[in-house]
Amino acid sequence: MAGSTFGTVFKIMTWGESHGAGIGVVIDGCPAGLALCEADIQAYLDRRRPGQNRYTTARAEADAVEILSGVFEGMTTGTPISLLVRNQDQRSRDYGNIAELYRPGHADYPYDVKYGFRDYRGGGRSSGRETIGRVAAGAVAMKLLQELGIAVRAYVSVIGPVSIDRSHLDFSFIEKSPVGMPDALASERAVAYLEECMRAQDSCGGVVECVAEHVPAGLGEPVFEKLDANLAKAVMSIGAVKAVEIGDGTLVSGYRGSENNDCYATDENGVPRKATNHSGGILGGISDGSPIIVRASFKPTPSIAQPQSMLGRDGKCHEEAIHGRHDPIVVARAAVVVEAMTALTLADHLLLAATSRVENLKRVYGPAR
Amino acid sequence: MAGSTFGTVFKIMTWGESHGAGIGVVIDGCPAGLALCEADIQAYLDRRRPGQNRYTTARAEADAVEILSGVFEGMTTGTPISLLVRNQDQRSRDYGNIAELYRPGHADYPYDVKYGFRDYRGGGRSSGRETIGRVAAGAVAMKLLQELGIAVRAYVSVIGPVSIDRSHLDFSFIEKSPVGMPDALASERAVAYLEECMRAQDSCGGVVECVAEHVPAGLGEPVFEKLDANLAKAVMSIGAVKAVEIGDGTLVSGYRGSENNDCYATDENGVPRKATNHSGGILGGISDGSPIIVRASFKPTPSIAQPQSMLGRDGKCHEEAIHGRHDPIVVARAAVVVEAMTALTLADHLLLAATSRVENLKRVYGPAR
Amino acid sequence: MAGSTFGTVFKIMTWGESHGAGIGVVIDGCPAGLALCEADIQAYLDRRRPGQNRYTTARAEADAVEILSGVFEGMTTGTPISLLVRNQDQRSRDYGNIAELYRPGHADYPYDVKYGFRDYRGGGRSSGRETIGRVAAGAVAMKLLQELGIAVRAYVSVIGPVSIDRSHLDFSFIEKSPVGMPDALASERAVAYLEECMRAQDSCGGVVECVAEHVPAGLGEPVFEKLDANLAKAVMSIGAVKAVEIGDGTLVSGYRGSENNDCYATDENGVPRKATNHSGGILGGISDGSPIIVRASFKPTPSIAQPQSMLGRDGKCHEEAIHGRHDPIVVARAAVVVEAMTALTLADHLLLAATSRVENLKRVYGPAR
Amino acid sequence: MAGSTFGTVFKIMTWGESHGAGIGVVIDGCPAGLALCEADIQAYLDRRRPGQNRYTTARAEADAVEILSGVFEGMTTGTPISLLVRNQDQRSRDYGNIAELYRPGHADYPYDVKYGFRDYRGGGRSSGRETIGRVAAGAVAMKLLQELGIAVRAYVSVIGPVSIDRSHLDFSFIEKSPVGMPDALASERAVAYLEECMRAQDSCGGVVECVAEHVPAGLGEPVFEKLDANLAKAVMSIGAVKAVEIGDGTLVSGYRGSENNDCYATDENGVPRKATNHSGGILGGISDGSPIIVRASFKPTPSIAQPQSMLGRDGKCHEEAIHGRHDPIVVARAAVVVEAMTALTLADHLLLAATSRVENLKRVYGPAR
Repeated sequence: MAGSTFGTVFKIMTWGESHGAGIGVVIDGCPAGLALCEADIQAYLDRRRPGQNRYTTARAEADAVEILSGVFEGMTTGTPISLLVRNQDQRSRDYGNIAELYRPGHADYPYDVKYGFRDYRGGGRSSGRETIGRVAAGAVAMKLLQELGIAVRAYVSVIGPVSIDRSHLDFSFIEKSPVGMPDALASERAVAYLEECMRAQDSCGGVVECVAEHVPAGLGEPVFEKLDANLAKAVMSIGAVKAVEIGDGTLVSGYRGSENNDCYATDENGVPRKATNHSGGILGGISDGSPIIVRASFKPTPSIAQPQSMLGRDGKCHEEAIHGRHDPIVVARAAVVVEAMTALTLADHLLLAATSRVENLKRVYGPAR
Repeated sequence: MAGSTFGTVFKIMTWGESHGAGIGVVIDGCPAGLALCEADIQAYLDRRRPGQNRYTTARAEADAVEILSGVFEGMTTGTPISLLVRNQDQRSRDYGNIAELYRPGHADYPYDVKYGFRDYRGGGRSSGRETIGRVAAGAVAMKLLQELGIAVRAYVSVIGPVSIDRSHLDFSFIEKSPVGMPDALASERAVAYLEECMRAQDSCGGVVECVAEHVPAGLGEPVFEKLDANLAKAVMSIGAVKAVEIGDGTLVSGYRGSENNDCYATDENGVPRKATNHSGGILGGISDGSPIIVRASFKPTPSIAQPQSMLGRDGKCHEEAIHGRHDPIVVARAAVVVEAMTALTLADHLLLAATSRVENLKRVYGPAR
Repeated sequence: MAGSTFGTVFKIMTWGESHGAGIGVVIDGCPAGLALCEADIQAYLDRRRPGQNRYTTARAEADAVEILSGVFEGMTTGTPISLLVRNQDQRSRDYGNIAELYRPGHADYPYDVKYGFRDYRGGGRSSGRETIGRVAAGAVAMKLLQELGIAVRAYVSVIGPVSIDRSHLDFSFIEKSPVGMPDALASERAVAYLEECMRAQDSCGGVVECVAEHVPAGLGEPVFEKLDANLAKAVMSIGAVKAVEIGDGTLVSGYRGSENNDCYATDENGVPRKATNHSGGILGGISDGSPIIVRASFKPTPSIAQPQSMLGRDGKCHEEAIHGRHDPIVVARAAVVVEAMTALTLADHLLLAATSRVENLKRVYGPAR
Repeated sequence: MAGSTFGTVFKIMTWGESHGAGIGVVIDGCPAGLALCEADIQAYLDRRRPGQNRYTTARAEADAVEILSGVFEGMTTGTPISLLVRNQDQRSRDYGNIAELYRPGHADYPYDVKYGFRDYRGGGRSSGRETIGRVAAGAVAMKLLQELGIAVRAYVSVIGPVSIDRSHLDFSFIEKSPVGMPDALASERAVAYLEECMRAQDSCGGVVECVAEHVPAGLGEPVFEKLDANLAKAVMSIGAVKAVEIGDGTLVSGYRGSENNDCYATDENGVPRKATNHSGGILGGISDGSPIIVRASFKPTPSIAQPQSMLGRDGKCHEEAIHGRHDPIVVARAAVVVEAMTALTLADHLLLAATSRVENLKRVYGPAR
């Protein structure tokens, strides 16, 4: 139990269900002296908000955030920052058979076994709305990272059979792409593929890639709180993620050592650097100063309009269709969630690694008196 | 800092360096009343021990484990179980240029940046010997799982270009295979490929797959301590792992919803079950009662005999070769490590999930007095 | 940083400042299946509410609690329970010199040194209003304890020179006493003493005692998470507490072993029991089945109307008085806070101790399949 | 379960029973670059070692510590420091009735209820030998504190009816006093009282006081990880402690606010300081820069030679005496344990508080690149 906390020193606790009063998060351990206002957070929430185009659900939610504590005169005070997003679209409706059926690909069955019953309205705690807490907290982490010069960006790299072409990346296109891809051509093809899936009353999977730049070398706490281990946990904890890769990821199983090792070479300024970045910026679980690269494979949205064989609470199989409108893909709205979880992980590790040397403590506390 | 603890209620702390006095682990939170002796643990350590064949390092270590506490009259007492494996092969030798060079693919550079210096003898804490603590603790977790009827098994599924053929799996062959594969033909091809790599003074990557059977539904604590999130962390924390997959893993990005959803169907006994297991036994971060499937992609051993361009502490690039003998693959000896990390994760989740309902507490403490 | 979390498995995170938008708490890890409604919580909040009589501050706050998540159809679902109490009395006012002065006995100076600045409005996070989160969460813990037959009750035992007479305790009087004492005569004397203090523009200290009955033997996790250790932490974390005692507390330093040991004797039913309870229900850090007794010494309210020498942010001493109306004692309203912290500690330990034996796991998960 | 870990960032895990193979501790999170050798630790262990005079048990143990990991070339490396003390005096002996009886004042009964059985040899994990792990780890914490100019010292202030006279303290006398008191006259009287107790086959209680000087203001993480809350937990977790006080402790319940508040005054150098230190160096749970004062009340040794009524595993009362030789007081050897727990708490808080401001992170990581 008690699984809604993330982080050790920069720590968050999220709460809320799809059709309850609201969704929120408390951020505890954010250093004092960070400029923060609601608009900083709203910008990220708007990126994950539904109803933006025909590939995301039509649920109309403003998802407006309120800062309830921890900020005084525009600055974080070092005390817990409580953020609240009220649910608006809680209209009582007929959940029909949902309460009595376990939908394939959904968490209905395990929730019922675990807790004895569940809040079946809109998926309850296992709804995608749960990610609001992650994104809101991630926005605060991002502000802290920016203060230290670190940039984090996530985008969609794969949708079904369509991948971005890495020789034609255009990050300015991400916001224009209805599916969040940094490649106009791939985006167009992905949209065509999505339309086809929707006509077939089906959904499809995809990949989100996240890159963190200017992360100082030295973050990560061997041997269990390694930076990659915590990124893997952070990203795998997002609903629908089935694989997490760092750097070249699954490809490394086919590499030889001479291909995979990032040798050093002097750059144009005569500074020695890793000539390649197969490692994705992490060696031995510690950041190595190169860009950190994380990739998450998302399964297709499990809610599809086709009839499927579901398990009933009565112990029998039922051929039923799931009504309502659902995103045909998860990835478009999930990119900002991956970004948030990456930012939260980095923020926590920045704080953890700050005390790795006696010398650092002396920088903070001054010489012995 | 303080990254050597794993688990919340079934908790371990590992310690030790490659060329220090020894390697060990303390297991805290193991329930009382579990039969345990050194032979139970030694069996697992023997599986990861070096020097077993020409694809593992020649370092001669008995790796004999000693139980220092927590067991009385053959049973765990509920107090911490301290396990010690003395290092034997600590002969003073010439580490040559290692102390002054950052080897490609190794953690040398990030360790130095993080801590200001490092124990460079044999990789220090980032050595593969660190996994002794994991495997020893995993053996204890495994005993607990067995007591509850749970079985966990890991094996090598890929080495370089060679994959096992899932239509010809023979789990009894794993121990006979010099590379730990449950498929005689694949094993033979993998060995041939390895020989080729070794002739080319190179190493190669691979994949370990782990299956846990008879895990009760209901394990996993949403939304951050989900079972898959913690398995991802557990497995990604093993040195050389660059990707973790659950169930169909990266494949899901190419699936449609209708392909990926595990529909229900009645089995031969008329009991409804998931007809497929694309989910790998986990839905919404909670075990669903099906076998749990985890896969880890390991990079090739970074130590290769070819000269490589390394970074020196002097800030210059040096073309040097790494001397000594190294495993050409990691996976053969790593399978038992993946198994251990999976067992540790499941043991902790069994304890965590035991209190998910008020009703469970009443079963433990009896009715209100 | 990140100090606003309490508990390991039954875990809470509180947030909120005196003059921010509100105060709240998220409870994570409460087992599913507990009947819970807002009235259950409100009853406890009403006991700590200000403005009840002339010995508590006149601040008019309804302190009405809203359950934002974690409860469905009147039952806890196992997901985080978020509780919100809006601050009403936030009227903008002149904080005068408070922002520039460090008040004696208050946390002003350490907060400023730690965080660089502080929310000086009404004490910010160090205000007594912070305890609303504790009390609200404690109410939920109390409901869980009651379900298992455990009763927890706190009351005031000392105010200044006045102590309750243990031969005349009347627990039904607690609610009638304006100072929360279970002894009519002592209450009357305490009130007289308080009036005297108030006339002298002064405040006074006191003691809260808390008793937990029907706690099963076996709670407490040696050697650092002992039940008494966690009770000490829980209670000492309440503002103004300067001492925590278990059982006979400080008196034991003057005892001989033969006086302090609780020998066993058969009771009227022939059942052997501890004949005395000097230990306060805890031996070796584990509950022994006898009533658990905790005592907290509270310092006098530091805000007094007399002029005092304060430190200014300008580095100079200033003779100033603190304006406004303040409780002359803390203990009357603090009893429910001690009760809450005791309940939270016990709830967490009930969950932790549920997995102390392999046998308990079998009771929860059934025999090995 | 899993209660043998202490600390969040500077974290330790202790293990070991009285009559097992040994006692030890792993320290995880100690910053790199601290000079450390076995003699540093041995000095503290020697202070708690038995057999030093007739007021401590005759058990002959060298209690020699071995550093197994985490130190390279005389410096901590930032990796876990494993410390081992082998038990020597494990001679097989007749434990007689101990296995079948629950001794008054001992943890025998709760251990049996909790775990189903116990290691009854010499108290097992609840033996005073468990404190070896605390003291060894505390020695490392102390080294870190010293590096930052912080001094921690504990001594005996009360034995039975004898208290030190605060107007005649002589800290250089502590090591000469057979009972660890910094006052020759009190020490003499305490010894006389002890002799009297021993003649009466009895034991007696006492108080240990600990003072930490030059602790920077700003340590402590409100609202649950306050410095005083964690000191209370740390000290209450020591066996036999029944009360913990900070500063004036229980006395504050009798004070008026005007007596208890520490007003500010300019010292001889014109620097404003707290004129008094009733708060014991902690306000609002955060260190205020004044000396930190902690006091622990210890109960008398429960093992006494007089016959007592004990509970048997057979459910009946038995009049029996405890054989063997036992310390008539706990406090003499416990002072160094209180010192250790105080040092461990301060070390963890130094690391935690180092990231309380964004500005501190910039000092560690440099300006944004």
